[in-house]
Amino acid sequence: MSAAFTLSLDAMGGDHAPQIVLRGAALARERYPNAHFLLFGDEAKLKPLLLADKALAACCTIHHTDQVITGDTKPSQAIRQGRQSSMWKAIEAVKNGEAAGVVSAGNTGALMAMAKLIMRALPGIDRPAICSLFPTRVGETVMLDLGANSQCDARNLVEFAVMGECFARCMLGLERPSVGLLNIGSEDGKGTGPLRDAAQVLRSSHLDMEFKGFVEGDDITKGTVDVVVTDGFTGNVALKTAEGTAKMFAEFLKTAIRSSWLAKFGMIFAKPVLSQVMARLDARRYNGALFVGLNGVVVKSHGGTDAVGFANAIGVAVDMISRDLNSRIAEELARIAAEQVQAEATEAVAEPAPQ
Amino acid sequence: MSAAFTLSLDAMGGDHAPQIVLRGAALARERYPNAHFLLFGDEAKLKPLLLADKALAACCTIHHTDQVITGDTKPSQAIRQGRQSSMWKAIEAVKNGEAAGVVSAGNTGALMAMAKLIMRALPGIDRPAICSLFPTRVGETVMLDLGANSQCDARNLVEFAVMGECFARCMLGLERPSVGLLNIGSEDGKGTGPLRDAAQVLRSSHLDMEFKGFVEGDDITKGTVDVVVTDGFTGNVALKTAEGTAKMFAEFLKTAIRSSWLAKFGMIFAKPVLSQVMARLDARRYNGALFVGLNGVVVKSHGGTDAVGFANAIGVAVDMISRDLNSRIAEELARIAAEQVQAEATEAVAEPAPQ
Repeated sequence: MSAAFTLSLDAMGGDHAPQIVLRGAALARERYPNAHFLLFGDEAKLKPLLLADKALAACCTIHHTDQVITGDTKPSQAIRQGRQSSMWKAIEAVKNGEAAGVVSAGNTGALMAMAKLIMRALPGIDRPAICSLFPTRVGETVMLDLGANSQCDARNLVEFAVMGECFARCMLGLERPSVGLLNIGSEDGKGTGPLRDAAQVLRSSHLDMEFKGFVEGDDITKGTVDVVVTDGFTGNVALKTAEGTAKMFAEFLKTAIRSSWLAKFGMIFAKPVLSQVMARLDARRYNGALFVGLNGVVVKSHGGTDAVGFANAIGVAVDMISRDLNSRIAEELARIAAEQVQAEATEAVAEPAPQ
Repeated sequence: MSAAFTLSLDAMGGDHAPQIVLRGAALARERYPNAHFLLFGDEAKLKPLLLADKALAACCTIHHTDQVITGDTKPSQAIRQGRQSSMWKAIEAVKNGEAAGVVSAGNTGALMAMAKLIMRALPGIDRPAICSLFPTRVGETVMLDLGANSQCDARNLVEFAVMGECFARCMLGLERPSVGLLNIGSEDGKGTGPLRDAAQVLRSSHLDMEFKGFVEGDDITKGTVDVVVTDGFTGNVALKTAEGTAKMFAEFLKTAIRSSWLAKFGMIFAKPVLSQVMARLDARRYNGALFVGLNGVVVKSHGGTDAVGFANAIGVAVDMISRDLNSRIAEELARIAAEQVQAEATEAVAEPAPQ
């Protein structure tokens, strides 16, 4: 993004805050020299860190907050008692127009609850969702919901599909992304009621979506569709299972190589390409999940990430702002609503009420 | 198993039946020289295959069946119209005492529906489940349900926990396996109602279980608990997501190595240990999911597996028979029921009804 822009950062959120947040901002500053950061957090902790990095200090403004939302704070408690927290104030800055978006590595549930309360959902959206990119064998796939809504009805899933499709257009530059509903079989009768109902709606013509029907767990990494839609419970389990499996694979490899003198020798030659593979699957590269469906840009960084990961989460926020995702979603929802009205009117004319 | 035993095989089930089934049986025969196989399927196809393998023929009996249950047959249709099928007849052989267990690589839903109808569930079990081992960073974990029941209530999840614990004792030789409920957070308030209710029951003392509470997707491969309990929808998605991720990782590695002359040279030295890693994560090694909670041993092989994978599925059936898993589950259920009655009686004495 070439124009100047301001982001608000929850400087106290995450396992290694505020250090990692500031080091992440320092990395992001190199990539986005026009960025300005509002740092919400404990001034006594933030000031010394900025004193040590003059270049970063030049593009940051500290807003002192006393309160911190911890990882074990319940969302309901956070919105009742956390209004003086770094998280609340950072979101409020977006609502007040002081920042174009917010990034936090803090408590996911609290962040979503606060964002919904402060920013409100986009008109026509019942439930915002957590959305992120996933590496696949052929590129990248958008997946949502990754944990905001444990139980979803058909309407929620359809909204996720619309938002995920807009996200894929923005982030992957696809003209007509394909969409699939995550299920345990591709046959029509499979899965739960909400899934079957959502599939029926997504097949209807007024949505004008490249809907490919049901996909299964292994289709995520196959890249069968550009957008994988699921409820937040299943999506969260799938995401963490995939992360765990990749980590196990990497660990097995490292242990095996360390165990053999010959393998260690061979690795001198093979290491550059192995490092490429590790980089391609690096969780930090995919750090930064967007809360879609809100009246503002909110990006959640993994709580345990490092500076590189946090900088990537800032990158996601910058992309969303510069590509104006939220306006695109709002336009798409308005188009669908208009076409639905049109379709219903046509139907009414074709089949006049019995006299 | 040193004593002679008979298994029935659905010779027509799976993508590459009957060839793979017979080649799998041939491999299993080498491991279990006392095995006898009842082959249910099309005699015209089976006979030539046995003619080509005299050693296998000596331990097989063909039972001709005309009908085949295809992959797209709905379970309800299979049990109404499939009573002359190789699958039905193979299960019936167990019910009739002609075989100690059955292995099929056919349609999972049809196999479960038929097995429930023919064998019935164990007394005290509401819903049988699909159970399998999973590789972890520290060993192996038992996971269930992997797809038999899309939606589960608390009672189902508790039964899965009891059956999974027995399975872990049998298969992993653990005295007191630890059990976790798959959720999207480890805090008490997380997840769906059935999960929270099941956790409360599993914590109660009369179950006498090493219950560790909620675990998350990445805990599966971490090996945080010995038994991961979940509903069939989530379990199926998690299993397939993990398989897909491991395949993607392996493919990225292969492609990267092929792309570099230096890496190919290095691989000459590193290959033996890499092959070890691949073998450790080989899906065929974990082939063979047990249908737990039935009045008989039913093992489902992956439909697309090869002879090695099918032989491993036969191995799972042999283990279950020789370790008498079903009796252990029945005993455990009886013990729990007795302790519950005892606990209720003690409670009634301690708190007499108001007069």
